[in-house]
Amino acid sequence: MADYDVFELGDVVLQSGMTLRDAKLVYTTYGSLNRRRDNAILFPTFYGGQHMQNEPMIGAGMALDPAAYFIIVPNMFGNGLSSSPSNTPPPYDRARFPPVTLYDNVMCQHRLVTEQFGVERLALVTGFSMGAQQTFHWGALFPDMVERILPWCGSAKTSRHNFVFLEGVKTALTADDAWRGGWYDTPPTKGLRALARVYSGWVVSQAFYREQSYLQLGAASLEDFLVMQEGRRLNSDANNLLAMLWSWQQGDISANPLYNGDFEKALGAISAKAIVMPSQTDLYFPPEDNEWEVRHMPHAEFRPIPSIWGHMAGSPGVNPVDTAFIDSALKELLVS
Amino acid sequence: MADYDVFELGDVVLQSGMTLRDAKLVYTTYGSLNRRRDNAILFPTFYGGQHMQNEPMIGAGMALDPAAYFIIVPNMFGNGLSSSPSNTPPPYDRARFPPVTLYDNVMCQHRLVTEQFGVERLALVTGFSMGAQQTFHWGALFPDMVERILPWCGSAKTSRHNFVFLEGVKTALTADDAWRGGWYDTPPTKGLRALARVYSGWVVSQAFYREQSYLQLGAASLEDFLVMQEGRRLNSDANNLLAMLWSWQQGDISANPLYNGDFEKALGAISAKAIVMPSQTDLYFPPEDNEWEVRHMPHAEFRPIPSIWGHMAGSPGVNPVDTAFIDSALKELLVS
Repeated sequence: MADYDVFELGDVVLQSGMTLRDAKLVYTTYGSLNRRRDNAILFPTFYGGQHMQNEPMIGAGMALDPAAYFIIVPNMFGNGLSSSPSNTPPPYDRARFPPVTLYDNVMCQHRLVTEQFGVERLALVTGFSMGAQQTFHWGALFPDMVERILPWCGSAKTSRHNFVFLEGVKTALTADDAWRGGWYDTPPTKGLRALARVYSGWVVSQAFYREQSYLQLGAASLEDFLVMQEGRRLNSDANNLLAMLWSWQQGDISANPLYNGDFEKALGAISAKAIVMPSQTDLYFPPEDNEWEVRHMPHAEFRPIPSIWGHMAGSPGVNPVDTAFIDSALKELLVS
Repeated sequence: MADYDVFELGDVVLQSGMTLRDAKLVYTTYGSLNRRRDNAILFPTFYGGQHMQNEPMIGAGMALDPAAYFIIVPNMFGNGLSSSPSNTPPPYDRARFPPVTLYDNVMCQHRLVTEQFGVERLALVTGFSMGAQQTFHWGALFPDMVERILPWCGSAKTSRHNFVFLEGVKTALTADDAWRGGWYDTPPTKGLRALARVYSGWVVSQAFYREQSYLQLGAASLEDFLVMQEGRRLNSDANNLLAMLWSWQQGDISANPLYNGDFEKALGAISAKAIVMPSQTDLYFPPEDNEWEVRHMPHAEFRPIPSIWGHMAGSPGVNPVDTAFIDSALKELLVS
């Protein structure tokens, strides 16, 4: 009783020069494609998330209403559903899973959208965090195909500081000998817990802890919250987390043959109507980076989420107030 | 040819209920105590630093001028010079080194100042980071003895977020099996490198990386900077780093019999004339925490350092512009 479908990509040559053989793009859809095929929305997943984690943004009465829209949620490579270290057969399995960029992801998603559904225009591409990064990629790579974008809590290019934060996350995990360079048979739980604990400092803001906002998430204390966060990562495969982390670190809408690293040109090519929504207190996708990006996008508005929840402000459904703020902007954009 | 002196404390009963037996407080002095004994300045050390690392703030023409002042630099417990896991004989060595608070540190420093030098009033207590935290302790624990304080890049109480950031740092180190619960014979270098890489995301700001300010520190690239930072930690003893980290996590000027956890009362008791200087972009001692503290201190001014160097803005001598800004405030305070 799978709640998803598999799009068979065949052999995909990646930017890294490696081939993702017999690649699979797992996706789910909500609602129906109308006869004019103009009500499709693409909503890529975020780091460590699968399509189910996007669902709190989808529903009757919300912007992403399946009664009105055909919503496609493609799972990012490495997330354990689409081709990933954990589900790819040898010799491309585990530590040998080839590096996949967000460009690679979006090119494969493009095939899904056009070949599987015959969709030539997307009413909206939207996403959270790495989903926002994929959203920016769509805007820059297929400007004629994307009418609107709403990336939240993510940037068009991974900043140097963001890269360094991820270095810390990665190194905490790989410091565990049980990781065995990716060739573990039993999970490196100590490293996964370390990764989670490092992450906990970054994923919310200083003010989130000052105000003890974690109590709203069902944590009884600070330490209880930290262990809850460990629990989220213990269910993840270490190589999968590292594969997606690599994709994130390389994130750059201009790192491809279309733009050859000319970041301003790539931003300038995003003709979609856009609302770009950082969280005001995000520590690794700080609003300043989006503010700069928006200045180079022709039809974009910069609209920070007024929240002390840091990056977690954007996590689908976690904080009702921030979720409503994002949903409201999505509604506004969709009727504009 | 030691450049320091040792103050023998004897057996010190700590807040934790353990005894630091045959405890040693290592210190250095600069300049001479005048006849009136009213020109003494106390300048405690910071995390991972020893007295040598304070020296860029001391010199002819600077605020802390040995020609005018008698400057005492006490080494924090755990820093490898004063009693530490690395230099304490069994059974209190290594993983069994007893937990030491900043209160314990300051009570022992008080004995040094009064018993060794007969100093009853300090013209100034000042310090960076954990040195700032010790400075706040002096202000709250010995208000009649301290005329002025200038804590920079540190708070009177370790915030919850700061605590969580340190959890990540700690967990990255201890994820290395070579750490062996503190009973290593060879250093857990993988863990020390992981600690350093996690730290690198926190110790400077997002803007520091955006502007590639690390190039000013002699790094040829981002990765070169990260390896330089690893080098700084490889020379440290893991248990020492963990001992100081514990002291940092517990930092709170009111966690003692004088104030019984009444933080506002402790801040209100700091009668010293104070200039409190966070770095505008510090990620773990953010200005907001100091701003709140200053509102509860009777004679304090809040004066952020306008810098994109994050916490590192305060690191003695690392950034000449910020060092000069702090030195200038020290001069102003000393003549007021």
